[in-house]
Amino acid sequence: MLTLYAPQGTVAVAAHVALEEAGLPYTIHWISIIQGEQRSPEFLAINPKGRLPALLTEYGHLTETPAILDYIADISDKFMQSDPFQKARARELISFLAATVHVNHAHGPRAARWSDDPAAHVSMAAKVTETMADSCSVIEAVLPNAGWFLGSYCIADIHLYAVYRWFEGDGVAIANYPKLAAHFAAMKARPAVAKVAALHG
Amino acid sequence: MLTLYAPQGTVAVAAHVALEEAGLPYTIHWISIIQGEQRSPEFLAINPKGRLPALLTEYGHLTETPAILDYIADISDKFMQSDPFQKARARELISFLAATVHVNHAHGPRAARWSDDPAAHVSMAAKVTETMADSCSVIEAVLPNAGWFLGSYCIADIHLYAVYRWFEGDGVAIANYPKLAAHFAAMKARPAVAKVAALHG
Repeated sequence: MLTLYAPQGTVAVAAHVALEEAGLPYTIHWISIIQGEQRSPEFLAINPKGRLPALLTEYGHLTETPAILDYIADISDKFMQSDPFQKARARELISFLAATVHVNHAHGPRAARWSDDPAAHVSMAAKVTETMADSCSVIEAVLPNAGWFLGSYCIADIHLYAVYRWFEGDGVAIANYPKLAAHFAAMKARPAVAKVAALHG
Repeated sequence: MLTLYAPQGTVAVAAHVALEEAGLPYTIHWISIIQGEQRSPEFLAINPKGRLPALLTEYGHLTETPAILDYIADISDKFMQSDPFQKARARELISFLAATVHVNHAHGPRAARWSDDPAAHVSMAAKVTETMADSCSVIEAVLPNAGWFLGSYCIADIHLYAVYRWFEGDGVAIANYPKLAAHFAAMKARPAVAKVAALHG
């Protein structure tokens, strides 16, 4: 049995969707960020970084969405390409989402990670719409006109779905990026995605 | 033949070491960041993100260090664990290095990515020593007392080596983290690492 430690409505949606889609047995252990449960001794024993999500397996726990997604693909033998170059393309997009797009987004709500000056936090939040729009342009340039990112559904499509959920709140209209909008709509139409989305609000 | 587009002395060191260690045929195409070559039309045709490194393969080009490292491990069948959980642990550390440690470091030289206010850049740079020390503590907690991260040498060890090179400049003394210092020393003692290091200065 796998247990996903997840707050509602964050990037943890990606791991949750992957578990649901893979058909693996799992449970969700909800963590309240508002109540600071990610800083509780119980959770820090699982992930000393205090970040979410974390996946508890029979071998120990894993953190970092890219690693969790690759692990779910590996043990389910689903949602990852077999060709080495195509696998690398999936991981290339996932790494961009984790190390650039998620970071751009975080400069709104989490600016205090990188500066102690409240005035700097304001200027960082003010640039989020611009950096997230740039992120959309990069993704738009690599998506196909229709269908999944690499033809067959993979963990990069799933990670993209979790990230899409931030753009409107960050002041970027997905409708301005036709390929991205079509991909987001295709993701929302999947039953497993709709089921998970309803749980995350 | 693989061609790595790389500047000297950046995270591109990781992909360069991996290519050298794997024994794959490759060439280096040096890119001068000081001269802004990553923004040249020639390079933007390869990587529209204008970021480095990029790996040109017979199938197309790849960006993002985690994806490039996994690809080199995949095609060489070296430097990656075979067990799914151990593979995930390697990718977990690599993702932390790319999405947290590299990002923390970048708030010194690249603060303008996330704010247009020069005063904010100063406050962001002022916090880099703290965030990089926190990063060292996380890595120290997962490294073994001796030997490679997961027992056998893997791409996470290689990525770690590239990241270590930043700590002294960011005001963090690796000597204060004994496991990290021992791992860094073991990496520097590898002939392939020494060869690549000499090329990057």
